[in-house]
Amino acid sequence: MTIDQSRLSQMANAIRVLSMDAVQEANSGHPGMPMGMADVATLLWSEYLVFDPAAPEWLDRDRFVLSAGHGSMLIYALLHLSGYDRPTMEDIRNFRQLGSPCAGHPENFLLDGVECTTGPLGQGFAMAVGMAIAERHLNARFGDDLVDHRTWTIAGDGCLMEGINHEAVGLAGHLELGKFNVLWDDNNITIDGSTALSTSEDIGARFAAAGWHVVRCDGHDFADIRRAMDEAIADERPSLIACKTIIGKGSPGKQGTAATHGSALGESEIAAVRANLDWTAAAFDIPPQVVADWRSTGDRGRTAREAWTARLQGNPAGRAYEEIMRGALPALEGWEDYKTQLASDMPRMATRKASEAALGVLTAAVPAMVGGSADLTGSNNTKTAATTPLTAKDYSGRYLYYGIREFGMAAAMNGMALHGGIIPYGGTFLVFADYCRPAIRLSALQNAQAIYVMTHDSIGLGEDGPTHQPIEHLQSLRMIPNLLVFRPADAIETAECWELALQNRSRPSLLALSRQDLPALRTEAQENRSARGAYRVRTADAARRVVLIATGSEVQLALDVAEVLEAQGVGTDVVSMVCTQLFDEQDKLYRDDILPHVKPSDILRVSIEAGTTFGWERYTMVDGLSIGIDRFGASGPATALFDKFGFTTEAIVPQIKARLGI
Amino acid sequence: MTIDQSRLSQMANAIRVLSMDAVQEANSGHPGMPMGMADVATLLWSEYLVFDPAAPEWLDRDRFVLSAGHGSMLIYALLHLSGYDRPTMEDIRNFRQLGSPCAGHPENFLLDGVECTTGPLGQGFAMAVGMAIAERHLNARFGDDLVDHRTWTIAGDGCLMEGINHEAVGLAGHLELGKFNVLWDDNNITIDGSTALSTSEDIGARFAAAGWHVVRCDGHDFADIRRAMDEAIADERPSLIACKTIIGKGSPGKQGTAATHGSALGESEIAAVRANLDWTAAAFDIPPQVVADWRSTGDRGRTAREAWTARLQGNPAGRAYEEIMRGALPALEGWEDYKTQLASDMPRMATRKASEAALGVLTAAVPAMVGGSADLTGSNNTKTAATTPLTAKDYSGRYLYYGIREFGMAAAMNGMALHGGIIPYGGTFLVFADYCRPAIRLSALQNAQAIYVMTHDSIGLGEDGPTHQPIEHLQSLRMIPNLLVFRPADAIETAECWELALQNRSRPSLLALSRQDLPALRTEAQENRSARGAYRVRTADAARRVVLIATGSEVQLALDVAEVLEAQGVGTDVVSMVCTQLFDEQDKLYRDDILPHVKPSDILRVSIEAGTTFGWERYTMVDGLSIGIDRFGASGPATALFDKFGFTTEAIVPQIKARLGI
Repeated sequence: MTIDQSRLSQMANAIRVLSMDAVQEANSGHPGMPMGMADVATLLWSEYLVFDPAAPEWLDRDRFVLSAGHGSMLIYALLHLSGYDRPTMEDIRNFRQLGSPCAGHPENFLLDGVECTTGPLGQGFAMAVGMAIAERHLNARFGDDLVDHRTWTIAGDGCLMEGINHEAVGLAGHLELGKFNVLWDDNNITIDGSTALSTSEDIGARFAAAGWHVVRCDGHDFADIRRAMDEAIADERPSLIACKTIIGKGSPGKQGTAATHGSALGESEIAAVRANLDWTAAAFDIPPQVVADWRSTGDRGRTAREAWTARLQGNPAGRAYEEIMRGALPALEGWEDYKTQLASDMPRMATRKASEAALGVLTAAVPAMVGGSADLTGSNNTKTAATTPLTAKDYSGRYLYYGIREFGMAAAMNGMALHGGIIPYGGTFLVFADYCRPAIRLSALQNAQAIYVMTHDSIGLGEDGPTHQPIEHLQSLRMIPNLLVFRPADAIETAECWELALQNRSRPSLLALSRQDLPALRTEAQENRSARGAYRVRTADAARRVVLIATGSEVQLALDVAEVLEAQGVGTDVVSMVCTQLFDEQDKLYRDDILPHVKPSDILRVSIEAGTTFGWERYTMVDGLSIGIDRFGASGPATALFDKFGFTTEAIVPQIKARLGI
Repeated sequence: MTIDQSRLSQMANAIRVLSMDAVQEANSGHPGMPMGMADVATLLWSEYLVFDPAAPEWLDRDRFVLSAGHGSMLIYALLHLSGYDRPTMEDIRNFRQLGSPCAGHPENFLLDGVECTTGPLGQGFAMAVGMAIAERHLNARFGDDLVDHRTWTIAGDGCLMEGINHEAVGLAGHLELGKFNVLWDDNNITIDGSTALSTSEDIGARFAAAGWHVVRCDGHDFADIRRAMDEAIADERPSLIACKTIIGKGSPGKQGTAATHGSALGESEIAAVRANLDWTAAAFDIPPQVVADWRSTGDRGRTAREAWTARLQGNPAGRAYEEIMRGALPALEGWEDYKTQLASDMPRMATRKASEAALGVLTAAVPAMVGGSADLTGSNNTKTAATTPLTAKDYSGRYLYYGIREFGMAAAMNGMALHGGIIPYGGTFLVFADYCRPAIRLSALQNAQAIYVMTHDSIGLGEDGPTHQPIEHLQSLRMIPNLLVFRPADAIETAECWELALQNRSRPSLLALSRQDLPALRTEAQENRSARGAYRVRTADAARRVVLIATGSEVQLALDVAEVLEAQGVGTDVVSMVCTQLFDEQDKLYRDDILPHVKPSDILRVSIEAGTTFGWERYTMVDGLSIGIDRFGASGPATALFDKFGFTTEAIVPQIKARLGI
């Protein structure tokens, strides 16, 4: 049921015209990329991509990622033309207008068929690697009958210049992701002009060096694209399909230039395109034959989906597969026992160690959890007995040695979470949250349940010094919308945070964990007290005059400070602020109880966190006191550093007394 | 004056023993890398690197960067043994102790001979690229007689897995930096174990694909290392010298394993190393012949420096070269006229446009300024008439087309600033500060004057939507120690911020600039009012009840709000908070004048910034009001977005009146 070449051309021209018209209408957007890749996308959609517009959430669909997200009109055109419910033509007319699902860049939360949010270059590619890993992993566990799809990505020169693509290419090559195909829009143009301004790289040779199959084609010749696609599919390695294209193809006056990249073509050039393509239909009007041809592109997928559905029903693993893909959490076997045991007998331990212990139980109980670390497995304590290595030889494993690729790891985690069937967690040092920050932000924006295990969370890591000591990191992460940042103070809180991270299915979590040992604070674990974000771990004995608000390793210090103050008759509460975001979500009654606000001068609030004081005024109020570190750290043993930076009762108590005027 | 092989071996063993002993003494650190690279480093130091321990700041010295910064004992041993004043042996004994210049990772501000701070992997490599660019640029301007040195980097597998190295490799290859040589410690080991756990890449082939010369050698065979070095020097391309080494070489029980990477070898293994190397000297004691051989390694450099000094004195450009390297700012010709003209006749314009105008004058006056953009030249407005392109064919240019490489750009800027002779500035969108955040942090830690031009600084960028709209970025950058974040409100403030960015020689600056046009606020430019960080742009007419604190594009909105309030009898100040850090540095008198703090309930403070409210309590106090955006943005025209998110007088005035109870 192959569509002939001239009709394919018409289909591609429909993308071109729709894209340039929508950009023109919005007077904003990027026509060049959709026009340049229209032929490749049309052939992909018509003959290769397996999808069903009537069932966008079909579990075994191929995943398609437009990594070059600025070319968003390409995917809007593809989804609309092939018959998805949305975007409607009205949505496309409202391209880039407030409320339209056709946003400036494709957003996974606005449209079915948009597998992930793209625009920050390179990340779509790297998320697609995560999706391809997820596919192979689930295939290994559930079999070809249930899981057998490909992952396709369109990437531009920008994606391939960004550092993250090196990490993603390396991971995909190492894991031999043969069902992963990248269509490179090889048009020699970036925003600044010719790619020759900034790069001289032989991109194909680079991919080959990482174990990829590389094939080239003329991106405007359907037969040649087909040959390349077939070769890519036949090859067992991940494939780079270098599609030589002309940006803005179809625009007689502007094609092949950066002028088509990021702005409307203008009325006269749009008329010239119409003449050039012999396209007589009005804006936002698609000829019936073209519509019919486009609608038929989903036929292969519908047939495939029907066959898959039949297989699913006969497959003994079918139900389990559907459940894991739906994201249902199984009963956490052994978990209550683990917490009870912690409460009865908890030794001093680092929260990273407590995290390892918690993960031991959780990964045994939750098969969807797939862990890893960016080459800090022994330091992040992320590996458990249940998580054997996921390798090219054994995709059924549940632990990824991500290598020294923090950004690639985080993006792959997003891809796995968005694919479904996996709850990814991955580790690095907290200071290197900066290395993957753009992906953490995308976890939050995309409502993706990625769980970041970030150890060595303060100067308490000691000798590695200022390059490795987080200062501004906790606060800078807490301000990312929709991200839960947890900093537990002992093993029980660590267990509680893991529980919360698992339960929050539509937002990412980040656990900041200590390198150094910490004492046990709690002796009960019936209620998840961390769930309210902050709670009182000590109530004033004498009349309350001070509330100490501390996190993680500083909670114990706060308790020590409270002891000293109480001995001097100063009633002191200690609050463990495990997660500011969850605390902010509590009702006012609870918040006012924990942080009383009747007469500021009567009760002094003091924050204690071994990081920047910036932002703590939200909880201490300006006439409160923030104990923190507003400079870079230093190299030395942890105890010497805590002493140097004033994290001792001797240094803190006098400051509090001075504020109280006693 | 070549030292014979057996004595070279002894010199290398001195590094090995010193490294393992220092790590043992500290019970913390990384012996494996210094022991593995001891032979390569010894040969480099003895026969290739041009340096003079008696004149560490000699302008034409070769630059040596230990990109694999965890192997810090290698550089401490090299500096000490070759005769630098510091580190002394006592410093080395105090490796990783508080106050020792031998910190966990090498810090440029602690020791001469440490050209940059390394540890965050990949960044040393990328900074070295910046140094190599600086060398070629200054060479083109001042000639071979004054500027003719090489840049050497030791990089490990971690450096070469990090995404940033892809960007750095691409830049170096494109710019044909033939005097840049990377010594790759090719030991097949990472922290997690064999590199085979996480990578299958042919690294040499990858570098070759980017236009590099690649040569391999046995990193424990001096003749073979020498052959490779000679070949690298002879080749006109940047060279990767792949040194096949054994990590922890010399340790009979642990060499070749990850066990040597990041912890002390232990007393018994240390004894075994001594026996194995036939090394009888006690810890921290170096045999006299070895000391003498090491001290002689600076001879070539001393001779070269003396010849250079003679050339300098005879060179008509010598004085200018010394001045630019010393960082002296020339008179800013035309600058006062420019500001005067702005004050007399300033049209509505975006601050990014105002920045372009300011740069036009400044780059003409300050030859040290070298600009660029990560492929957003036309959007960041960073290119001026004076800054012609810096290319492989013409290194004298002053504008770098960095390509889509934000992180590589920022690190290269750090390298240029640290090399000296260049004040680098570079542009991207503010949201992509996240992509280069680890390098911005290193600018600040290293006291490097890199100037970041970050445009499209809020939802005001409009249609590109949430992936491109900064929310948490301004505040998250303001909390990085030692970084100045400027958000000017009009063209005069933009000029003032540029002036301040230029004047602050030992800290980086970041200018957050609007995409959208803004009206002129000021009609005078005699005094740099931005220098105090915040100042009053409007003083209350009626009795003061409100202080509005706004930044950038929101200052005009604050003025509009003030107009409405005043019309209703509510006296309202408006403060432009151009740079919170500079404001915090003012004396209390000034701060209390701008933000009166007598009786909080009498004067309501309101912050207005189109970004997160997180942290604004520092200035508004908790019972103040923060107008901001605590969620991700949206795609739509800027005016629609400002309306949606409540940035209108209609939305703000009632909130203020409600707080005032009127």
